[in-house]
Amino acid sequence: MYRTHNCGALRIADVGTSVTLSGWVQKSRDKGFMMWIDLRDRYGITQLIFTEEATPKDLFEKARSLGREFVVRVEGKVIERASKNTNIPTGEVEVEVTALEVLNASKVPPFTIEEETDGGDELRMKYRYLDLRRGNVQKNIIFRSELAIETRKYLAGEDFIEVETPVLIKSTPEGARDFVVPSRMNKGQFYALPQSPQTFKQILMVAGFDKYFQIVKCFRDEDLRADRQPEFTQIDCEMSFVTQEEILNTFEGLTRHLFKQTLDVDLPTFPRMYYDDAMRLYGSDKPDLRFGMPFVELNDVAKGKGFGVFDNAELVVGICVNGLADQYSNKDIKKLTEWMQRPQIGAKGLVYVKFGEDGSIKSSVGKFYSDEDLQAWGAKFGAEKGDLLFILSGETDKTRKQLNELRLEMGSRLGLRKPEDFKPLWVIDFPLLEWDEDASRFHAMHHPFTSPKKEEIPNMLNGDHETMKNLKADAYDLVINGVEIGGGSIRIHDRELQSKNFKLLGFTPEEAEAQFGFLLGAFEYGAPPHGGIAFGFDRLCAVLNGQNSIRDFIAFPKNNQGRDMMIDAPSPIAQEQMEELGIDLALSEDPLIH
Amino acid sequence: MYRTHNCGALRIADVGTSVTLSGWVQKSRDKGFMMWIDLRDRYGITQLIFTEEATPKDLFEKARSLGREFVVRVEGKVIERASKNTNIPTGEVEVEVTALEVLNASKVPPFTIEEETDGGDELRMKYRYLDLRRGNVQKNIIFRSELAIETRKYLAGEDFIEVETPVLIKSTPEGARDFVVPSRMNKGQFYALPQSPQTFKQILMVAGFDKYFQIVKCFRDEDLRADRQPEFTQIDCEMSFVTQEEILNTFEGLTRHLFKQTLDVDLPTFPRMYYDDAMRLYGSDKPDLRFGMPFVELNDVAKGKGFGVFDNAELVVGICVNGLADQYSNKDIKKLTEWMQRPQIGAKGLVYVKFGEDGSIKSSVGKFYSDEDLQAWGAKFGAEKGDLLFILSGETDKTRKQLNELRLEMGSRLGLRKPEDFKPLWVIDFPLLEWDEDASRFHAMHHPFTSPKKEEIPNMLNGDHETMKNLKADAYDLVINGVEIGGGSIRIHDRELQSKNFKLLGFTPEEAEAQFGFLLGAFEYGAPPHGGIAFGFDRLCAVLNGQNSIRDFIAFPKNNQGRDMMIDAPSPIAQEQMEELGIDLALSEDPLIH
Repeated sequence: MYRTHNCGALRIADVGTSVTLSGWVQKSRDKGFMMWIDLRDRYGITQLIFTEEATPKDLFEKARSLGREFVVRVEGKVIERASKNTNIPTGEVEVEVTALEVLNASKVPPFTIEEETDGGDELRMKYRYLDLRRGNVQKNIIFRSELAIETRKYLAGEDFIEVETPVLIKSTPEGARDFVVPSRMNKGQFYALPQSPQTFKQILMVAGFDKYFQIVKCFRDEDLRADRQPEFTQIDCEMSFVTQEEILNTFEGLTRHLFKQTLDVDLPTFPRMYYDDAMRLYGSDKPDLRFGMPFVELNDVAKGKGFGVFDNAELVVGICVNGLADQYSNKDIKKLTEWMQRPQIGAKGLVYVKFGEDGSIKSSVGKFYSDEDLQAWGAKFGAEKGDLLFILSGETDKTRKQLNELRLEMGSRLGLRKPEDFKPLWVIDFPLLEWDEDASRFHAMHHPFTSPKKEEIPNMLNGDHETMKNLKADAYDLVINGVEIGGGSIRIHDRELQSKNFKLLGFTPEEAEAQFGFLLGAFEYGAPPHGGIAFGFDRLCAVLNGQNSIRDFIAFPKNNQGRDMMIDAPSPIAQEQMEELGIDLALSEDPLIH
Repeated sequence: MYRTHNCGALRIADVGTSVTLSGWVQKSRDKGFMMWIDLRDRYGITQLIFTEEATPKDLFEKARSLGREFVVRVEGKVIERASKNTNIPTGEVEVEVTALEVLNASKVPPFTIEEETDGGDELRMKYRYLDLRRGNVQKNIIFRSELAIETRKYLAGEDFIEVETPVLIKSTPEGARDFVVPSRMNKGQFYALPQSPQTFKQILMVAGFDKYFQIVKCFRDEDLRADRQPEFTQIDCEMSFVTQEEILNTFEGLTRHLFKQTLDVDLPTFPRMYYDDAMRLYGSDKPDLRFGMPFVELNDVAKGKGFGVFDNAELVVGICVNGLADQYSNKDIKKLTEWMQRPQIGAKGLVYVKFGEDGSIKSSVGKFYSDEDLQAWGAKFGAEKGDLLFILSGETDKTRKQLNELRLEMGSRLGLRKPEDFKPLWVIDFPLLEWDEDASRFHAMHHPFTSPKKEEIPNMLNGDHETMKNLKADAYDLVINGVEIGGGSIRIHDRELQSKNFKLLGFTPEEAEAQFGFLLGAFEYGAPPHGGIAFGFDRLCAVLNGQNSIRDFIAFPKNNQGRDMMIDAPSPIAQEQMEELGIDLALSEDPLIH
C-alpha cells in the first residue's frame, strides 16, 4: 500500500498514529542535526521531520539525497510540531519518518513549481505536466470540474436530459470554417467536427426530448487569439414548448446556482436591455455594467454652432467621467487621445470638456462653443463640478465602438472594474441579420435557425435593405462584466419560415436541401416550438474567477498556431495512412516547390 | 405560455383545475358524439375529451381534423374519467378541452411511433427524429443520461476530478487506425482524434491530479460490426499511488453503485479469475458465468485408445450439458454439428457421449472407447444419468474458442442466460504480449503502457519466445454476463522500463521518441506509480438493460458503413475547402479513372 492518508489529511487528533504517505518533495530545509521535507500531493502538504536523535543515519542520508519533485513513500509517526503553522490545515503536526522509499527520481524541473513561476509561456506549455503541478493552475482545473458538476446537478434537477450528439458530422460551409475528417470507408468524402450541436439539439426537440443539455466539445478552424481555442467546450441547452421569457428565467437560475455554489455569491436579479439600447448607451452588445458612464448623444446641442467636425458627423456622443477634471492634465488627455488614435481603435480625435471644481469650464472646442453651450452639454450628462466629458463624433457604428473602448479604458483606470464584482445582464432582441459589406450580403447574426420575432415575419423578404437590417429576432445573450458568456434564441420550427430564412441568407433551395434537408424534413413531422442557449464553458470558468484568459482553465490548451506544444501536434502522417484515406498533400502552387 | 403542466403530471387531485397542455397527438378515437385524443410528451400521456354536449361544434371539428403526430396546445378543465385506466399514472383523469391550437402539423410518419414499429432499420435511421419518439428508444437514451449522472456522482464522491482532455491530438500508428484531421494552419500536418485519452490521463497523474475521470468520446477507424461504432464513449479513469487491488475495489464499488441506483440490483461480491483459468475453463477471456458448463480436459483419458483424431490432437476438451441426453436426438446433434462446422466457428466435428436416464451410454466414438472408458470421461465431468457430453479436439487455442461458442449456444438454448441475471467477474493477470502470427511480431495485449508484473521484469527482453508469450501483466478486465465492460492496468511509470517495453513491441528508439517522447520525458520528472481502467459506456448501458446492441443506446448512431443516414454524412466537400487545407483527393490507381 502506498498510503494510509493523503498529504492534506493529518490533524492534531492524529498525533501518535502510524501512517504511510506518498507524494512529491516540494522542498527541504536542512539544519544539519535536523531536516524537514514538505511532502506534497493534490490534497495538501505534510511536513516530514528527520532528526539526529530519532532518525537512523542511513535514513537521514537518504532523505538528504532527495531532490525537488522526487516521488517518495514514507512511513512514520504523527507528532505535534514544535512551531506550528496556522496557515495550512496540516500545520499543527509533522511526521517523524521511520522508513523512506524513493518511488521515482526527478530531474531538476526547467522552472519552479510555484504559483509565481520563472517559466515562460512556451516552456510551461511544453512541460505542461509540470505546469499543471502548480497550485494555481491545478486549482483552476479543479474549479472547472466543480463547475461542471454543479451545472449538471442544476439542469438534471430541472428535468434536462444529457444526450451525447455525434462528433463526426457533416460539413456545412455556413459560419466559421469546419475541421474535416476524411472517411476511409467512403473515399472522397469527409466528416466535419461540429461547430456546435445546433441541428442535433433541434432534432432532439423534434424527437420529443423536451429538455436537452450537454457539456460538449465544439470545434472551429479559425485564426486564433488569446481567448479562442480550436476546440472549446459549451454548455449546450434546448427546450420545447417555451417562450423566451421561460428560457431566460431557467438559465438565470442556472447562473445564480453556479455563482452561489462555487463562489457563495448571491447574484442580483438580472436586468434586461434591448440590443438597440446597449448599442446606443454603451456602444457594445456586451456592456460592462460594473460601472456607469453611459453614452449621451449630443447631436441636438453640439451641431449647428459652426464646428465643422461635429456638424458633418452622423453622431456626436460622449461619456462623463466623474471627478477627473482637475486630475487629468492636458498632457494626460493628449496621451489618451493618442491611445484612441491607434489603428486598433482608429478615432480621429478626442474632444474634452472639463468642469473644474472652481466652476471653470475648459474644452478643446472652447472656441466654437460658449460656456453656456458647454453647460447645456454638461446638463445632458448630469455633470457636476469636477467632472470631465470625453466626446467623439463620426459615423454612428464606428463612433460608438470607439467610445466603448474609451469607456472601458476609463473604467479600468479608475478601478471600477473589480474582478470580485459581478454584474450580469440579458441583452435581448438582437437583429436577425447582419450586413456583410465585403460580401454584399446578409449573414445570420446568431445563426440561420433563429426565429424572427412573430411581428417581423411579414416584413421578411420584402426587399427593403433598411427593413431587413432592422428585423429583430427572439435572440438573447447573457453578459457578465462585459463578457458574453452565453447566447441563444427561439428557433424556427416551421419548414416554410426556415426556407424563407435560408433564402434571405442567400442559400439556393438546392443548397439548403443539401446541407439542412434533414432538418427541413424533420419540421414536417410535428416539430414543437423550441429554443435554447449555449454557454461558453471555458469563458464561464474564467469570468467566475475574474480572469481574462480561457487557456488557464483548459488542461491541455493549444497555442496561437493551433499547436499542442507538449505532444507536438499536429504532425505529418505516413503516406500509407493518406493512401488508405484516398487523399494526398496538394502540390504547392509555387512551381518551384513540389 | 405553452403549458401549465406536462402530459404526465395530472392526477385525480387536479380535478377541477384549468390547465394548458402541449404535446403530440398519439391517437384519436372518434365515437361520433364523443371523441378522445391521447396527447403525448416525454413525461406521459394525458387523455383529452371532446363531447357533443360540452364542446363547441367548430372546436370538435378542429379536433377531428388532427392527424397523428400533430403538435397541439389545448386549454381545458381536468375532469374525472368515467372509465379509468390504472395502467398509466394519469389514467384517472382526462381534460375537457375548451380551446385548441395547432402548433404544427405532421405528415403521416413513414412508420408507426410505437414500441413495436413497422419501420425497418434503414428507414428508422433516416428518420431518427421519429424513431427517437418511440417510448423504448427514448427510455434507453434517458437511461444513458441517468447512468452518466450516477457515474459522476459516485466518482466525484470518491475525490475523482473530471478533466477534459483534447480531441485534436497526434496520430500514433500503434493499435487501431486513427481518424485524422488536416491542419490548415500547419499545412501538410494532421491532428488525430483520440482512440482513448490514455497518454493524457497518465500525464495528469504525472501532474499530480491523483484521481482523474472523464466520460469521453473516443474514435477508432475500424471496420464496423453491430456492436462497434466509429465514435464511442468511455468512462475513463486513472489513479495514482494505487495497487491493482485498490483499483479493483474502487471500480467494483462504482459498478455496484450503478446497478443499485439504476436497477435496484444488489450485485454479489465480484469473483476474480486468472486469465489462464478463464481460457482453460471457458475458452474465453470474458466467460459468461450465469451458467456453469466449465470445460473439462480429457487428454489423459481420451488419448492412446486408438482414436486417431484425439490421439493427434493437442487438446481434447468438452462440456457437460445436464439432462439433455434423452432430449437431443441424433438429428438434433447432427444439426448442432453442422452449426459448429460453419466457417464462423470452423470445428471439424463434434463428439458426443449420452448418459441415458436408463443407464445406457451412447457415443459417436463408441467404437473406439469402451463404456468403462466413457464412464471415466463422465466421472471427470461429474456427469450423471441424463447428461450429455460434447467434446472437441485439435489445436488448443482454436479448440477452446470453438467450445466457447458451443457452450454459449447451449446456455442460450437452455435459457440459462437470463437478461435479468447479472454475473460480474474480474479477469486478472492478462498476458503482457500477444503474438501476431501474420506480422510475426508481438503486440501489446492491453496497450504499450501496461506494466508487467514486478516479478516478470527480469524476464523481459530475454529473447525466448515462450517466456515472452507467458509474461504476465498487472492487467484486468471487468466482465459481466460474458461481455467485457471495462479493462485496465497498472501502468509503467519508469522511463527505462517503458523504453524496454517499446523495444519489445518493435519500436525503434527514434519511433518511440517521435510518438511518445512527451510521456517518456514526463517519466523523468517524478512520475508517481499509477493505474486505471476504462469502461465502454455504450456497452455498459446495453448490458444493464440485458441487450446486445449498443446502437439502441446512442442517440445518433452510424451504420456499418460509418454513415449517419439522417444527416447523410460523410459527404464531399468543396474544392476550396481542400485547397485551404493543403490536401487533394488521391487519383485512383485505376489508370482509366481519374
